[in-house]
Amino acid sequence: MLTGIHVAFIGGDARQLEVIKKCLEMDATITLIGFDNLESKYKGVHLKELSPEVLKTVDALILPIVGTNEEGYVESVFSKNKIKLSEECLAFLPKTSKIYTGMARNYLKQLCTELQVELIELLDRDDIAIYNSIPTVEGTLMMAIQNTDFTIHNSNAIVLGFGRTGVSLARALHALGAHVKVGARKPEHLARIFEMGLVPFQINDLTANVSDVDLLFNTIPQMIITAKVIANLPHHSLIIDLASKPGGTDFRFAEKRGIKALLAPGLPGIVAPKTAGKIIANVLSNLILEQCSRNQEGL
Amino acid sequence: MLTGIHVAFIGGDARQLEVIKKCLEMDATITLIGFDNLESKYKGVHLKELSPEVLKTVDALILPIVGTNEEGYVESVFSKNKIKLSEECLAFLPKTSKIYTGMARNYLKQLCTELQVELIELLDRDDIAIYNSIPTVEGTLMMAIQNTDFTIHNSNAIVLGFGRTGVSLARALHALGAHVKVGARKPEHLARIFEMGLVPFQINDLTANVSDVDLLFNTIPQMIITAKVIANLPHHSLIIDLASKPGGTDFRFAEKRGIKALLAPGLPGIVAPKTAGKIIANVLSNLILEQCSRNQEGL
Repeated sequence: MLTGIHVAFIGGDARQLEVIKKCLEMDATITLIGFDNLESKYKGVHLKELSPEVLKTVDALILPIVGTNEEGYVESVFSKNKIKLSEECLAFLPKTSKIYTGMARNYLKQLCTELQVELIELLDRDDIAIYNSIPTVEGTLMMAIQNTDFTIHNSNAIVLGFGRTGVSLARALHALGAHVKVGARKPEHLARIFEMGLVPFQINDLTANVSDVDLLFNTIPQMIITAKVIANLPHHSLIIDLASKPGGTDFRFAEKRGIKALLAPGLPGIVAPKTAGKIIANVLSNLILEQCSRNQEGL
Repeated sequence: MLTGIHVAFIGGDARQLEVIKKCLEMDATITLIGFDNLESKYKGVHLKELSPEVLKTVDALILPIVGTNEEGYVESVFSKNKIKLSEECLAFLPKTSKIYTGMARNYLKQLCTELQVELIELLDRDDIAIYNSIPTVEGTLMMAIQNTDFTIHNSNAIVLGFGRTGVSLARALHALGAHVKVGARKPEHLARIFEMGLVPFQINDLTANVSDVDLLFNTIPQMIITAKVIANLPHHSLIIDLASKPGGTDFRFAEKRGIKALLAPGLPGIVAPKTAGKIIANVLSNLILEQCSRNQEGL
């Protein structure tokens, strides 16, 4: 339980509601900043404006997935106002408190370093990335079904990368009846791909492997689907790039060749905001629990 | 091969192109009626208007999925003109020839009975229905992902009916990590559902089984998701009804209760017209082959 723990939320989207619910269930003291349009009121929750006074007693400050922009503003779908997270204000945060966000821009990172407040970036964590691969895969399947005139079943699919998302995607495609090849580098990955009944290949041999591919998925955040690879693709094939922006595809050349190539947006928050929120809520509430028990031991 | 066999197509959509291609590969003599806007010209194919002269030598007449409407008109996405299939014209079809369509309205059925021409409805066939369940399932997954804020994975899903589509859908949902219950009647179906690692229940007990369902899929063409069942559904649940029109759901009551209920359209032609066309092409070309070898034996 989080009884007696003060958790403050600044801004966010539908996902944050699941985190708030979870903290409420665990009996935390909750302050919401930038939630003035929130329709469903939660009992025992305080709606406030950002002020030094509020921050003084906060144990955990929870920011949206993209913490702040480079100017320090926090987005909130629940408020018309953008909220600026200034150094003057954040200085009032107790030194034992922590700031949690999905991923931090430089503005926030520098601020936390200067103020010596610990910043935790949730999307960096393996557990979150694996849980998030579930809605990512479902969003990817949706995009593949929407953007082709053939079925995933019986198609030739290639997954590039066998990391946290690649494993989940390869398994789902296989389960739906696709013929799945996975391109990886590490020998232990190639072994696991084989064990799963899929066809492994060395990623350096990508160009030689794509001539009959229908669906090409990339999860590697490097330029990997180059012009040379694209030149070998069948015209009807579809590229879906799941690597974070700017992806690993030569989109300009794909367009020139008339091959459809899509850079997938942050799919969890789009296709399953409730599930995505629960993923963050579960991991985050455990992190706050750990933080508080460490703080108590330190006393 | 279909060498020397005269196959005539009247109207249709993208799916028909796959059938035409297949017949061309098999060396049939091909006449296209109502394809005047067809962009990609096929070699050795004759574009004609509907006339007694054309029909006189036809061995197989291929109509679109919905053969004609109740007034005898055939739809074609490749022509601005609707083509009327009149008794006067169809009377010129040789008695050994056959008419193939997806499903026939009464107009076409009566016409064929009167003229003693054999009419074959492809969508009635088990093989076509099983092959078609593949794009149907992918379209259903797409609809489920689009219309919920949670993932299929870890959701409670119920499939009603364990026929040609129910089996495929239950397997796909299970493979994506849903908790799948299947409602059926026949003891051998309940046994197979259990063998597949899913949870079977008697369809008469539906009301008692839905209180924690997230996704409810129906494949049974009877009123099955009644007001009584809907009254027991959680508010966030989604109904997708795959049974042919008008479906098996009390849509009026679902709307009243604020529960989203979708009647799926003919998904194969929408989500995967190429695959759907190939399915028809493969089965149809075999049927024409059989027809011709029987006709030859009869000579």
